[in-house]
Amino acid sequence: MTINVLAICGSLRAKSTNRGLIRFAQANAPDGMKIHLADLLDMPFYNADLAEKPVAVEQLLKQLAAADALLLGCPEYNYSLAPALKNALDWASREADNHLLSGKPVAIMGAGGGMGTSRAQYHLRQVCVYLNLQPLNQPEVFANAFSGSFDTDGNLTDERIQALIIKQLAALQKWTQQLRK
Amino acid sequence: MTINVLAICGSLRAKSTNRGLIRFAQANAPDGMKIHLADLLDMPFYNADLAEKPVAVEQLLKQLAAADALLLGCPEYNYSLAPALKNALDWASREADNHLLSGKPVAIMGAGGGMGTSRAQYHLRQVCVYLNLQPLNQPEVFANAFSGSFDTDGNLTDERIQALIIKQLAALQKWTQQLRK
Amino acid sequence: MTINVLAICGSLRAKSTNRGLIRFAQANAPDGMKIHLADLLDMPFYNADLAEKPVAVEQLLKQLAAADALLLGCPEYNYSLAPALKNALDWASREADNHLLSGKPVAIMGAGGGMGTSRAQYHLRQVCVYLNLQPLNQPEVFANAFSGSFDTDGNLTDERIQALIIKQLAALQKWTQQLRK
Amino acid sequence: MTINVLAICGSLRAKSTNRGLIRFAQANAPDGMKIHLADLLDMPFYNADLAEKPVAVEQLLKQLAAADALLLGCPEYNYSLAPALKNALDWASREADNHLLSGKPVAIMGAGGGMGTSRAQYHLRQVCVYLNLQPLNQPEVFANAFSGSFDTDGNLTDERIQALIIKQLAALQKWTQQLRK
Repeated sequence: MTINVLAICGSLRAKSTNRGLIRFAQANAPDGMKIHLADLLDMPFYNADLAEKPVAVEQLLKQLAAADALLLGCPEYNYSLAPALKNALDWASREADNHLLSGKPVAIMGAGGGMGTSRAQYHLRQVCVYLNLQPLNQPEVFANAFSGSFDTDGNLTDERIQALIIKQLAALQKWTQQLRK
Repeated sequence: MTINVLAICGSLRAKSTNRGLIRFAQANAPDGMKIHLADLLDMPFYNADLAEKPVAVEQLLKQLAAADALLLGCPEYNYSLAPALKNALDWASREADNHLLSGKPVAIMGAGGGMGTSRAQYHLRQVCVYLNLQPLNQPEVFANAFSGSFDTDGNLTDERIQALIIKQLAALQKWTQQLRK
Repeated sequence: MTINVLAICGSLRAKSTNRGLIRFAQANAPDGMKIHLADLLDMPFYNADLAEKPVAVEQLLKQLAAADALLLGCPEYNYSLAPALKNALDWASREADNHLLSGKPVAIMGAGGGMGTSRAQYHLRQVCVYLNLQPLNQPEVFANAFSGSFDTDGNLTDERIQALIIKQLAALQKWTQQLRK
Repeated sequence: MTINVLAICGSLRAKSTNRGLIRFAQANAPDGMKIHLADLLDMPFYNADLAEKPVAVEQLLKQLAAADALLLGCPEYNYSLAPALKNALDWASREADNHLLSGKPVAIMGAGGGMGTSRAQYHLRQVCVYLNLQPLNQPEVFANAFSGSFDTDGNLTDERIQALIIKQLAALQKWTQQLRK
């Protein structure tokens, strides 16, 4: 049975290295796993005063409903989370149907400065506690975006990180099967 | 000499209890302190692909340039920061003039569930390390938004929290004078 | 098949409220679960210069080898972990046999100030990432030690927290069975 | 006027690289600063049941009373703090004289894996909030202990880290003078 993974990337930039990580994952997903990328460009900030649910939010909720697992592309801005990623999770958390998120397995990856967005990733893991998301412990994927690991279009070229992502996707597949039982 | 404080509130909702905390602070600032509230409603997500700086961002940068200190209204969404607050700080951090933020004294307050947004506030403090903001250690202001501390318009009515805010503003005044030397 | 749980308590005090939580758990474990309490009183600080493994450490390692799951009693000292709890995990992590910890399901509970040791518990969850421990997300157990929830011997008397612990143990039982598959 | 700095190192090992960082700092302190190293080897775990204050604790308290600032050598064990460092701070925090810690400027440095103990350092900064310690934001000192930066006795040989420590000590000196006013 195919595992349907929804990828959400916290960077909105077209040539984002975090998107580059996700593109590599999409192209190298193991047999039995498909990875779709959510589009956050038109998603507004969560605001309880908004009378209608924005179209971009509706689209995200549909994708979440169809997802067996999540792949979170986690940039680090100023030692914490990218607002666009956090905001997407916040919108989803307001729905009555808590199975959009609750119980789903998660893989986290990030590209940034020398610590590879680790500071932001631990904040993201704390968010997962509340949302009852189930992030993989290992392997963690920390990519340095400023040491030649990416080309100028944001494509991942570093073989060590490529191998790590392949290992992480295999672990996500196994973790998803384990939690499904 | 008057201390000019810029307040930034992470909640966009009109009747937000976090805004209520800030309104109380504005109305009860000590002699020699004025508190202005930034408007984040039209501020887009940071995106390095944007060719021009949005008007709302320009306005925030002007207010930051004029501010001696910051007052951050920190909601907690899903155990971490409100994206609107984080995004405002992220925009400011991209400017060449790092004295928009660096070295400025900060007071943090928040209204939310039973822990009063403490989980989000510690994430915010980690952000301050990178931005070289100088948050007050004490007193911390944690308000429970669901136990009768606010009226239905989000105005703070709890006397214990009111007294705590007055104490925090006095500490901010002293801290600002100390760091200015 | 019986689930064998090892409880480790970060407080060394005889009348500790954190021990009180664990005692309640021991006396109210569901059918099919047994909870043993580790003894940390004679365990020294980890020090790579020590030529021989202390007896108290050997004893802990044996108990960990026999445990299917862990129950961590997590006090909060100065907004972070109790050294005795962290030190027990650190000793175990130095063993070649990484299955003493890796992959084991964990329940976390704590008694302390108004936030019920939540600040320390999120630090503990970060430790679990490295050790590949699998903490339950929910329910979290946060007990206020200073509001009449315990008697003077540290016994838990608060019915709401008692019910929460019973719910957490049931969740731990289910989680352990799920991860075992 | 001389600034008296007390260094506390979380690693007990004789050839610890974290001690190596502190030794380098001691030998290269700027004019007007003296750095003493606390001895934690005989300090027991904090336990409220202990009837008498251990001699090693009394010694630490005397050194803290005489210190104008702290230098914390922060190893990272399993993604969080070394128990020996945390325990020393916990003992000091139990004293009636809260000026042993409160208000004191702090510099943090650490040697460890590829992230240079950053995960532990952010936990330490959260501890500082409660203790009202005033850690320097910048520069942060993260040393990789496994890439040839230290000799086999734990002495720091990496010139980039050496320069960073000298810069940090100058910042600590300035910060101490600023907070003293």
